Amino acid sequence: MENYRECSKKVKDVSLQELRDRLAEFARVRGWDQYHSPRNLLLALVGEVGELSEIFQWKGEVEKGLPNWSRDDKEHLEEELSDVLLYLVQLADVCGLDLGQAALTKILKNAQKYPVLNPTSTT
Amino acid sequence: MENYRECSKKVKDVSLQELRDRLAEFARVRGWDQYHSPRNLLLALVGEVGELSEIFQWKGEVEKGLPNWSRDDKEHLEEELSDVLLYLVQLADVCGLDLGQAALTKILKNAQKYPVLNPTSTT
Amino acid sequence: MENYRECSKKVKDVSLQELRDRLAEFARVRGWDQYHSPRNLLLALVGEVGELSEIFQWKGEVEKGLPNWSRDDKEHLEEELSDVLLYLVQLADVCGLDLGQAALTKILKNAQKYPVLNPTSTT
Amino acid sequence: MENYRECSKKVKDVSLQELRDRLAEFARVRGWDQYHSPRNLLLALVGEVGELSEIFQWKGEVEKGLPNWSRDDKEHLEEELSDVLLYLVQLADVCGLDLGQAALTKILKNAQKYPVLNPTSTT
Repeated sequence: MENYRECSKKVKDVSLQELRDRLAEFARVRGWDQYHSPRNLLLALVGEVGELSEIFQWKGEVEKGLPNWSRDDKEHLEEELSDVLLYLVQLADVCGLDLGQAALTKILKNAQKYPVLNPTSTT
Repeated sequence: MENYRECSKKVKDVSLQELRDRLAEFARVRGWDQYHSPRNLLLALVGEVGELSEIFQWKGEVEKGLPNWSRDDKEHLEEELSDVLLYLVQLADVCGLDLGQAALTKILKNAQKYPVLNPTSTT
Repeated sequence: MENYRECSKKVKDVSLQELRDRLAEFARVRGWDQYHSPRNLLLALVGEVGELSEIFQWKGEVEKGLPNWSRDDKEHLEEELSDVLLYLVQLADVCGLDLGQAALTKILKNAQKYPVLNPTSTT
Repeated sequence: MENYRECSKKVKDVSLQELRDRLAEFARVRGWDQYHSPRNLLLALVGEVGELSEIFQWKGEVEKGLPNWSRDDKEHLEEELSDVLLYLVQLADVCGLDLGQAALTKILKNAQKYPVLNPTSTT
């Protein structure tokens, strides 16, 4: 486990279902469900991916762990990463799909598609 | 809770930390860590958002729950949604950020920014 | 020619080379060339595509010609469309590629890939 | 003028109106107009931006002029840049907007927003 990951250990383990339920309730009590058609949410997601890209656009190559970034810049990045996630969770939800299950299934599929070539090197 | 959501109830509750750990291990045993710089992962994410958009591009407005979609089309969509999520999780990880915590924080922030105007309507 | 196109007839015919030359000069006199690496410009382009998407995100299906849009909204859209184009032109330029030629070549290639099935219907 | 630009000098000067007219005719004779709603074209554009990003995704920083790219890789890039442009031109067209004029206007606006700080350094 590389060094930049150490600081990210947190107690709380956040699940995709928890996010989905909170977001569905969030939209419901505000009457926003009516705007949450699949393509509206998709375009909102694209908008947030744009904001995420803007953070990185003039920086040239960026090192893992963001060693020289200020706390403010990291918080801004956390917000944009979150915005992408929140729209993605909602998009899957209004499509009636289970994003967490789908993600696990995709990882298994990728594992079969890309077998580990030299397993002894992993120990 | 709307009807299209009923079929998405699953036993397994998938957490963002589980996905992060699986993906980090997946990349490590294949020697792919070296390619996982923040901007490489960001562009891979944009690529997957493109594939997600292609699914919806010629469809006109799409109804919630995807009532007329085939099982194959839904599985294709699940794969593309997953690909976006998997790169997003990895991007947050190599940046040393906790995506799940960040998402919860963002929901709270949004709740303060957009207060419920008429709380009695929510019961 | 459909009706919504009539109002877009203008005297000036703007070429991609003219845009390229103006943008190259614009960047040069401001000392911005140094930031215009291919991936920086690509991420800036993605950022602008995000802003373009935000204009359309909560609108549901939008009719051709934007019949109910205000002049301000149309001008905003013109700006975001332009921002995407300007970064695209600059990206092609720093890659040493001729975008106009490439576009004409692609149209010819598409014409071969998708032949007109019923040519008599075109008269 | 930097070196990587020399090879891009071509005789033909391609205008945005020419592309617009060719694409409108291309869609008309194939009966594709019916699919070219603004949001359909926008999502198609996002799809092509994804394909463009995939070209750059695992490359780390890329130098101007693409010095080590094969002819095939450059042609692939030309195709993806073109695809983005062609959908952008069509999106502007179905919105009834003049993309070339809008781009010139945006350059002038940018010139006012970002004045040249030290004009003597440009000679």
